[in-house]
Amino acid sequence: MRYLKLTIAYDGTDFHGWQTQASKPTVQAAITDVLRRITQEKLAIHSAGRTDAGVHALGQVAHFWTHSLLAAQEIQRACNALLPASVRIVAAEEVGPDFHSRFSSIAKTYQYRIYRGRVLPPPLCRYVLHYPFPLDEAAMAAAAQGFVGVHDFASFAASTGSEEEDNDRDTMREIYSAEVSRPAGGEELHFTVRGKAFLRYMVRKMTGTLLEVGRGKFSPADIERLYLARDRSQSGPTVPAHGLWMISVEYNEPWRIGAPGSIRQRGDSGPGGPGR
Amino acid sequence: MRYLKLTIAYDGTDFHGWQTQASKPTVQAAITDVLRRITQEKLAIHSAGRTDAGVHALGQVAHFWTHSLLAAQEIQRACNALLPASVRIVAAEEVGPDFHSRFSSIAKTYQYRIYRGRVLPPPLCRYVLHYPFPLDEAAMAAAAQGFVGVHDFASFAASTGSEEEDNDRDTMREIYSAEVSRPAGGEELHFTVRGKAFLRYMVRKMTGTLLEVGRGKFSPADIERLYLARDRSQSGPTVPAHGLWMISVEYNEPWRIGAPGSIRQRGDSGPGGPGR
Repeated sequence: MRYLKLTIAYDGTDFHGWQTQASKPTVQAAITDVLRRITQEKLAIHSAGRTDAGVHALGQVAHFWTHSLLAAQEIQRACNALLPASVRIVAAEEVGPDFHSRFSSIAKTYQYRIYRGRVLPPPLCRYVLHYPFPLDEAAMAAAAQGFVGVHDFASFAASTGSEEEDNDRDTMREIYSAEVSRPAGGEELHFTVRGKAFLRYMVRKMTGTLLEVGRGKFSPADIERLYLARDRSQSGPTVPAHGLWMISVEYNEPWRIGAPGSIRQRGDSGPGGPGR
Repeated sequence: MRYLKLTIAYDGTDFHGWQTQASKPTVQAAITDVLRRITQEKLAIHSAGRTDAGVHALGQVAHFWTHSLLAAQEIQRACNALLPASVRIVAAEEVGPDFHSRFSSIAKTYQYRIYRGRVLPPPLCRYVLHYPFPLDEAAMAAAAQGFVGVHDFASFAASTGSEEEDNDRDTMREIYSAEVSRPAGGEELHFTVRGKAFLRYMVRKMTGTLLEVGRGKFSPADIERLYLARDRSQSGPTVPAHGLWMISVEYNEPWRIGAPGSIRQRGDSGPGGPGR
C-alpha cells in the first residue's frame, strides 16, 4: 500500500463544494472519479477541510491510499489530463502511512478578497466580492487583530457543523494571525487568516463582521463582546462564498517520506509495507 | 441628439462574440438591450472592432446616439446595474457628433496571453492559452519585430472578412509595434500588438506563427516569406480565442467634447442640436 498527498487548486464556481453529494458536481467526486479510472481501484480521498459551494482553493490538500505502482508525478499528470481545467493537481507526493491531510495539519490559511474599485473587471467577478462603498480600512485592520488567539467563535459559526465535522459543537478555535491589507496598493482588500482549524462559515462571518467595522456599525472592541455573546445573530453577515479562497494547509516536514526526522521511513510503512 | 462613447470590458467566455446574431448571446446585444431599457429608445450601438466568440476585452470602445438627458455617469451606473457581471461599462463620456468608434480610431492594441507554467491555475483557464512545452522565446521576440510596418497580411487572415467589414479584401495593414515579453518575469508570455486595424483572426494567426518560431519550425526570417506567399495555409495555426484580449482603442483627444482643438463643440452638434 502506498500513501499519496495531493495539493489541489480549484475554481469553486461550478461545484457544490468539496464534499461528495449524490447527483451534484463536487471537487471530491471529480477527483475520486479520475483517480479510480487511473488506478482501477475503489479508492477514497480525504481532504484537510471541506470547502462550501462556490469557495475556491489554491492549496487544498488531500490524501489517499493505493496499490498502484504509478509514480506520484505520473498520477499528477494523468489527473490533470482527465480533470476539467477548473481543478488542477498542483503537486503530488508520496508520504508515510501516518500522514492524514486533516489530522496531520498544523495550520490552514484562508483569504477573503474584496474589490474596492468602482467598476469590477469581468475576469474577477467569480473570485472577489465587489464592495465599492466607503470603508474604514484602518479600523478593519485593527479589528482583525482581535481575532488572534484562542477564542470561543460561537458567534462566528454556522448554525450547525464545523468545517471538519458535522456534529462538533466545540466552538473554541485558535487563530495564529489575521490581517487586513491592500497588496501592492491595488484595488483589492484582503483579509488573510491563519489558524489551526475553522468552524463552518467562520471566515465568511469574520469577514462580514470586519465589513461592519469598516462601515462604522461595530468598533474593533466589539469583537471581544461577540466572543462573550455566543450568538451568531449579533455578528456581521455571512459574506458570499465566491470571495473566499483556501490558500494553504501546513504540515510538519517529517510527514514527507525520507525527510530527516520522518517518523516512519518508507521501509517500515506499516501493514503490508511498500510494493504490496 | 447626444453622442456617447462607452469603454467596455468583457469576459467573452459566455458570448458568441461582439456582434448581434439571432438567438445567440452577444456583447452587442446585451448592451443594446440594456441601453434601450434605460433610454426607452430604439437605439443602436457601434464598436471599434468586432471580437470573435470567446475573445475578451479590457477596453473595447462603442458609441451611440440618444435623445436621453441622463448624464453619461448615470447611463454608466444604470448599465452596470443591469448588465451581467461579465460585461462592465468602464467609462462613459459625451463626445462630439463626428466621433465614430471605428472610423475615428487611430490605433488598437491586442494582447495574446500564453501561460508557460506546468500547471495552469484554475482562475486563468478561461483567459490564457496553456502552453507548457519548450519555446525559444528570444526567437519569438525577434520574429515579432518582423510584423512591424505596412505589410500584406493575407497569410494571416481568415478565409474571408476583416475585423471590421465582411467583404473587405484589401489585406494590407499597418502594425505600429509588436512585442513578445514576460511581464515581471512571471509564468505568462504576452504577445502585444498595436496597429491601425486588423484582419479577422489576424492576431491569432500571428500568435500561431510565433509559436511555430518558438518551436523551431519557422525562423524569424520566415515572416517575410509569408507576406509574399499570400497563403494562409503556410502560416501557423489560428490559436484559440480564449487567450486573446482587446486591450485598448486610441483616439485623438479632440474627439472629446470641449477638449482644446475639438472639431465641433457641443453647441453645434449637427442636425437637431442638443436638447432635442
